[in-house]
Amino acid sequence: MQRPLEGLRVVDLTRALAGPYATLLLAGLGAEVIKVEDPKGGDLARENSPYVGRDGLSVGRKYQDDLSVSHLTRSRGKRGVTLNLKHPEARKVFADLVRKSDIVVENFTSGTAERLGVGYEDARAANPSVIYCSLSGFGATIKGQEGSRAMDVLIQALSGAMYTSGAEDEPPVRIGLPIADVLTPIFAVVGILAAVHHRVRTGQGQHVDVSMLGALTSLVAVENWAAMQAVGMLTRTGATLQRLCPFGLFECADGYIALVAVQDPLAHSLYRAMGQPEMVADPRFATRNARVANATVLEERILAWTRRHPMKEVIARLEAEDVPVAEVRHPQEALADSRVVDRSETVVARHPSYEEGPELRTTGVPIVFSAARTGFDPVFPTSIGEHNTDVFPRLLGYTDAEIERLKQAGVI
Amino acid sequence: MQRPLEGLRVVDLTRALAGPYATLLLAGLGAEVIKVEDPKGGDLARENSPYVGRDGLSVGRKYQDDLSVSHLTRSRGKRGVTLNLKHPEARKVFADLVRKSDIVVENFTSGTAERLGVGYEDARAANPSVIYCSLSGFGATIKGQEGSRAMDVLIQALSGAMYTSGAEDEPPVRIGLPIADVLTPIFAVVGILAAVHHRVRTGQGQHVDVSMLGALTSLVAVENWAAMQAVGMLTRTGATLQRLCPFGLFECADGYIALVAVQDPLAHSLYRAMGQPEMVADPRFATRNARVANATVLEERILAWTRRHPMKEVIARLEAEDVPVAEVRHPQEALADSRVVDRSETVVARHPSYEEGPELRTTGVPIVFSAARTGFDPVFPTSIGEHNTDVFPRLLGYTDAEIERLKQAGVI
Repeated sequence: MQRPLEGLRVVDLTRALAGPYATLLLAGLGAEVIKVEDPKGGDLARENSPYVGRDGLSVGRKYQDDLSVSHLTRSRGKRGVTLNLKHPEARKVFADLVRKSDIVVENFTSGTAERLGVGYEDARAANPSVIYCSLSGFGATIKGQEGSRAMDVLIQALSGAMYTSGAEDEPPVRIGLPIADVLTPIFAVVGILAAVHHRVRTGQGQHVDVSMLGALTSLVAVENWAAMQAVGMLTRTGATLQRLCPFGLFECADGYIALVAVQDPLAHSLYRAMGQPEMVADPRFATRNARVANATVLEERILAWTRRHPMKEVIARLEAEDVPVAEVRHPQEALADSRVVDRSETVVARHPSYEEGPELRTTGVPIVFSAARTGFDPVFPTSIGEHNTDVFPRLLGYTDAEIERLKQAGVI
Repeated sequence: MQRPLEGLRVVDLTRALAGPYATLLLAGLGAEVIKVEDPKGGDLARENSPYVGRDGLSVGRKYQDDLSVSHLTRSRGKRGVTLNLKHPEARKVFADLVRKSDIVVENFTSGTAERLGVGYEDARAANPSVIYCSLSGFGATIKGQEGSRAMDVLIQALSGAMYTSGAEDEPPVRIGLPIADVLTPIFAVVGILAAVHHRVRTGQGQHVDVSMLGALTSLVAVENWAAMQAVGMLTRTGATLQRLCPFGLFECADGYIALVAVQDPLAHSLYRAMGQPEMVADPRFATRNARVANATVLEERILAWTRRHPMKEVIARLEAEDVPVAEVRHPQEALADSRVVDRSETVVARHPSYEEGPELRTTGVPIVFSAARTGFDPVFPTSIGEHNTDVFPRLLGYTDAEIERLKQAGVI
């Protein structure tokens, strides 16, 4: 079976998380990704703790061939070459790569790629139909100091996302997932693939420009917070949503469950599961409007029941009554759910030299195609410049002597 | 300027949020979207409070032509037709639509589309190269009772996402954004566009199957929680991240800020902004390792300063020292940021009949193309079946008499 993006080649100038996750998705969908790293040091993510190697996992790097788990998981299926973008000769090598490619992706601070001579105009000069995607904090037009302040936590703060969780009068909530860093690349891939369609129709390449602030704010904007507020609805409701009561998180003796029983028949089933069928006839709890009006009392009643029993038992009783319920799981358990494992939505990564080492379950491609397969080629840039001797001769026709000269000159 | 997805036509069987947001993105990128609704009642989201109409915003529907804000924002740029999928004749109309289209999107409970005769095999029988995308709770293969329990809050619970926010020993955190409902459609669009590329190369259509649990769990899996835990790092760290101290949220006299000053020069600049330059020489705070070891003391020192001053003043002082800082903003303020407004990452929607009514700022397409434009056609399915008399004759060649007959027979 072919892969959906077969036939597309990507020059990947990205570092850290947001950019590399975009090219990871492209690689998992079958594009050929050539990761370009600085010969001195490479991707910053190579220095992220924890590490994995011959002694398993560790906080610090113990051996030369220990690999950052971040690098190990984010660079799967990518070929790695070196290029010192500050060297004047790098522009020619970059242009040679772009000439043989369909797509370039970068996530430098806005303005940096242009300054280095690897911006969209440089790429277009080499390949007029190239699709060039920039991921940045605030968009390609906002450069300099402001553009450099694009860490996930700052974008979360600016986007309004932190004030959507928690309850009124509680502090804003930092979302533990680096949501801006992982969301922006998915929109970047949408933009790249839309541009691929545009190119098929028109022959025209273009610049695709995605901003972390824009991506996350646009997602916050899917819910109509201002309209809810204008009509007096609470926008920060914490663990439960009283206007749909019973809805939300409830504490059990040994953990938490989420349950949703908004409609009358489900609410009544819940009362039966609680062993309190008399609540069905209680005017405070019988109908949807009554439940909303008496939400605090009802939630207390539910909690008084859930807190007395272990999670598994609460879930079994609710499932027996067909009430929608779910265990609140920790990431480790969630990642190993057979439903996501079977669909390769999470997959296992291992250090390429220590295949018997710890199994690291990490992100897959969460899309199942009936006529194409997803997944990562068994290729990995273990060392910086791992694939110089593959990519430069095969793709660009560089001779061994030329490669040696570029290396000696500090270009690659 | 053309739009990137010009030339693609979508039959949209979706309802509620996850599906309609997928087709909203497709519409905003320039695809022609034909929203298919049940003649009796239409999309469930038409009944979501709050409403907007001649009297502005309200909790309940006051007038016949009041529109749910959910419907108003999610159906922009879509044409609306009716089709009673339970009527035996509906299959022929569906097949006629699919024959003229490139893409079908549905988010019924798994198994329902097949049962109604509008599943992938039915669509493929009408149009062998169709791309058919299903969004469901757990994937197209998990049907029935379990597949029907796919509300956002249950998926958040199962995915591990709720245990990534908050601190150790705190309850799990319900993310206020309906994150599974908005994330899954973005992956769906990636899948659809990857399948479009595949079809260009091979002529082959296919089924694209995206699961809410898979989409969110794969995102949770981007961070390596298990590896962090194995080496003794906290995975739930609440408002701040002590291993990067100072990093995270800090309370001011009138709100909160996020700041990041991980490297020595930035930490030292922070101390100067605090008016405590002597901290630069304090062995507890001078170096990165020392700050991590003394994180609790340092965070208290920072809070003692930030709590005494209004947010704006704290930010001004930190910016004067070039310390990365951001105000934690509420959604309303965030959506109106000129940086996202200028890029149409948020846009204004209004009731089509009451253009002078309240301005509802809502989600745009957070991708900027240099050679194509995004945005929504000025077309909107105000009534159920709004575009029956446009789409059925123009696209399918149905006569007025045939349309009238289908209507009388309860098919459309």
